[in-house]
Amino acid sequence: MNGARAVLETLTGGGVDVCFTNPGTSEMHFVAALDEVPQMRGVLCLFEGGATGAADGYARMADRPAATLLHLGPGLGNGLANLHNARRAGTPVVNIVGDHATHHKVFDAPLESDIEAAAGTVSRWVRRCVSVRDAGQDTANTIAAAGSTAQATGGVATLILPADVCWSRGACAAPVTPGQTTAVDENVLEEAARLLNREGKHTVVLIGGDLMRRPGLEAASRIAAATGARILAENTPARQERGAGIPLVERLAYLGEKATAQLTGVRHLVLAGARSPVSFFAYPNKPSNLVPTGCAVLDLGGVPMALEELAHLVAPGVRPVTISAQRPGLPNGALTAQKAAAVIGALMPEAAIVSDEAVTSGWWLPQATVGCPPHDWLTLTGGAIGQGIPLATGAAIACPNRPVISLQADGSAMYTLQALWTQARESLNVTTVIFSNASYAILGMELGRVGTRPSTDGRARALLGLPGLDFVSLAEGLGVPASRAITADDLAKQLSRALTEPGPCLIEAVVPSQSSFLD
Amino acid sequence: MNGARAVLETLTGGGVDVCFTNPGTSEMHFVAALDEVPQMRGVLCLFEGGATGAADGYARMADRPAATLLHLGPGLGNGLANLHNARRAGTPVVNIVGDHATHHKVFDAPLESDIEAAAGTVSRWVRRCVSVRDAGQDTANTIAAAGSTAQATGGVATLILPADVCWSRGACAAPVTPGQTTAVDENVLEEAARLLNREGKHTVVLIGGDLMRRPGLEAASRIAAATGARILAENTPARQERGAGIPLVERLAYLGEKATAQLTGVRHLVLAGARSPVSFFAYPNKPSNLVPTGCAVLDLGGVPMALEELAHLVAPGVRPVTISAQRPGLPNGALTAQKAAAVIGALMPEAAIVSDEAVTSGWWLPQATVGCPPHDWLTLTGGAIGQGIPLATGAAIACPNRPVISLQADGSAMYTLQALWTQARESLNVTTVIFSNASYAILGMELGRVGTRPSTDGRARALLGLPGLDFVSLAEGLGVPASRAITADDLAKQLSRALTEPGPCLIEAVVPSQSSFLD
Repeated sequence: MNGARAVLETLTGGGVDVCFTNPGTSEMHFVAALDEVPQMRGVLCLFEGGATGAADGYARMADRPAATLLHLGPGLGNGLANLHNARRAGTPVVNIVGDHATHHKVFDAPLESDIEAAAGTVSRWVRRCVSVRDAGQDTANTIAAAGSTAQATGGVATLILPADVCWSRGACAAPVTPGQTTAVDENVLEEAARLLNREGKHTVVLIGGDLMRRPGLEAASRIAAATGARILAENTPARQERGAGIPLVERLAYLGEKATAQLTGVRHLVLAGARSPVSFFAYPNKPSNLVPTGCAVLDLGGVPMALEELAHLVAPGVRPVTISAQRPGLPNGALTAQKAAAVIGALMPEAAIVSDEAVTSGWWLPQATVGCPPHDWLTLTGGAIGQGIPLATGAAIACPNRPVISLQADGSAMYTLQALWTQARESLNVTTVIFSNASYAILGMELGRVGTRPSTDGRARALLGLPGLDFVSLAEGLGVPASRAITADDLAKQLSRALTEPGPCLIEAVVPSQSSFLD
Repeated sequence: MNGARAVLETLTGGGVDVCFTNPGTSEMHFVAALDEVPQMRGVLCLFEGGATGAADGYARMADRPAATLLHLGPGLGNGLANLHNARRAGTPVVNIVGDHATHHKVFDAPLESDIEAAAGTVSRWVRRCVSVRDAGQDTANTIAAAGSTAQATGGVATLILPADVCWSRGACAAPVTPGQTTAVDENVLEEAARLLNREGKHTVVLIGGDLMRRPGLEAASRIAAATGARILAENTPARQERGAGIPLVERLAYLGEKATAQLTGVRHLVLAGARSPVSFFAYPNKPSNLVPTGCAVLDLGGVPMALEELAHLVAPGVRPVTISAQRPGLPNGALTAQKAAAVIGALMPEAAIVSDEAVTSGWWLPQATVGCPPHDWLTLTGGAIGQGIPLATGAAIACPNRPVISLQADGSAMYTLQALWTQARESLNVTTVIFSNASYAILGMELGRVGTRPSTDGRARALLGLPGLDFVSLAEGLGVPASRAITADDLAKQLSRALTEPGPCLIEAVVPSQSSFLD
């Protein structure tokens, strides 16, 4: 068989059976081989950021990687921002980048560029396949290198696949040897147990990664109940299980000042799947490191069992504290971001998957949805906006029987809006709510926070405005039915309908800019 | 003054007074400083590919660089594809990438990534500013490194600008020392003259770069007239002057087979601003190197004066052969890509700037516009689709008094469509024609050319279809008035109106897919 078929058979044999693709000429043998390997589902994206973000969303929900298929260095470039987010999420991605035929590279044709260098910025593993005989094994090794979210060891593994490897014969598929699972360090566990028993009231357990799923959250809750420790979660979990019957955990704040307040007086910080807290950005005369002075840090690692074993040591027989079912009432009147959050909390269906890139307009969402039926919440992990719509797309492909709610700021929506077309083409059950405030509101806030004092009507402020976007037109242009909500009542009616109808839908929720976000 | 102001004053002092920006928190001091340096025009782009492509288009037409302002590694990633095109065009770009404050980098905050590595893939120069005292000088050196298209020495020069450099005080602006201009190698010139005098009839002069402007074209035409040499142009010139009164030059074909036919029997190839011809992609059992066997290659370099000096040697007193004014007639009936080309040729106004990313639908455009009033033609230089709309945007800012015509394929339009919003926001005089054939037609063609035989109704072919895009809705959603043309008459009416009205406008020209492109 040719190399393309061996790659596809190795992928599907290794459990990778969805490929988010934006191919070009050098990928045509790979595309043609889809006719021969029907186990692989090819999903076309109109822009590579849609493909890489969808691969991230897919794996966060499926607990196994998807593949991408990108077109040489520029295609990889277009996908880089969402691969960055996937890297920060610890998501396994089998990132396949097509390249010129090996013998063609020396001619420096127009699309030639240094793929390895760009891929290295987001990948834990980069392999160029140099011979058709290696196509299967290189693919298998790439899948193994990507790992799995369920082991908290996922990452972006990039396979550079030259065209001649795809078209040459003499390839064979290879089996995937799973990577080693990381064990919990028993000594660290015992140290943590002693610490919690002795200093629980002065300790924060900061959890993240796979420990944001129900077993980790229940273990954390038991530890808190037994030792008096406080549980906090990382600011941007890749996937958090939430809702009625699940322990609630407060997230560390995005704003350094608020995070500092959350950690004031803490003497011990135990990290469980989370990284030591740092400020998202630097600000003049403010600390980057958010660990309080004199606070000791102990890292348990991100192994899913770590917290359960720790709970077994310090909280035997103790029950987790879970949140009870509750929903906000439906508000009335002109829509605001706060009222929109209430509407979403009032109507969120069972088993929803939320892709949250609502930025400043999302401030009230966590509280408004706290007691909704159990759901998964996916956040922007790497700060590279343009994640949300692709992420929702991939999550919907991973979980076709669950409703996906994509909560988007208008500014961030405009990076990868093309992913709506894939939602239409694949008839995905995604409801997108655009919080449309006609501005980069977070930059309006940050302009003050970094210490500048631009005039209110000057050229600087004018650069942060987004007048004239019409998301109803944009969505319809991409094949997604859309409507506009001006009042809370509009939003409630439109959201109710969207959640009961199959296929994608978009609601432009017109809200005022939240410049008082900090209050 | 602070570093941000010193950077801006150095830019404007060095002739760089337009900045295409998509900023984030780490760039807020730069944005705030725009209030203090009114000579700098900040142009907001909703996506970084729009900013980098606009910077390319601006410099191709202004003959001096624009600056970009991008947000850390992911922002650079989003802008990478059009920086790749700028690199291949030889366009000077002062590419400014904001970064975390220097002291913040060690904390590996969520947006941290290896900016140098990604920038290196598209830049001829990468400099990180490490101290506020260097801010002015580093900026001046970056401008000098970017060079200028007028010297055929342009390139992407990247300045990585940490937030603390921008906000700290103690900076001063610096003057720009222009780089050395490259001189023509007189020995090579004399060798070329001897060759042309002796073997002119067996010689092709392949021109490109700045030699595609009127002086270079006239010199080439004189050389051809005097020596019997044939003139060909590179396949994708950054900017070609064309039209009535200007020598016409045939471009080397995109398809290797056709290019091979163009070069059959040639014994000598003289390169003047063009690179030695290679196939755009590799294909099984087809050559990558398009230089005929036994053909000798002599490279004159890309100095604009090279051809004029050569003409002085071999064609003293000889006049260039120019094309006479001519236009196609207006066609009737259902629209096709060929008829659309005729409509454009019939109506193209004086001094138009054409951004050509029409891909397969553009096949008939060069011939249909050959005798139009003098105009500039900008092509896709690096093969990374998504160039055209941003390029048109930048060209319109460079030449506010010239009409810009942006000719776009539907597939490639969907990479950077957001740039239409900037056209609306800045009231730019750009008329976009989308050749809407609901497919990646070029890939349908390439699928056959690479030797695959996918079934006509299989999954592979289905991956190359683009059903359901509505460019009228999309344009209106971005604030650009739009209409749809089904007949040639529709297009003629709509284009006539668009070319007389100020501000941007988009026409979706519905055409059949050109699968018979090769015939």
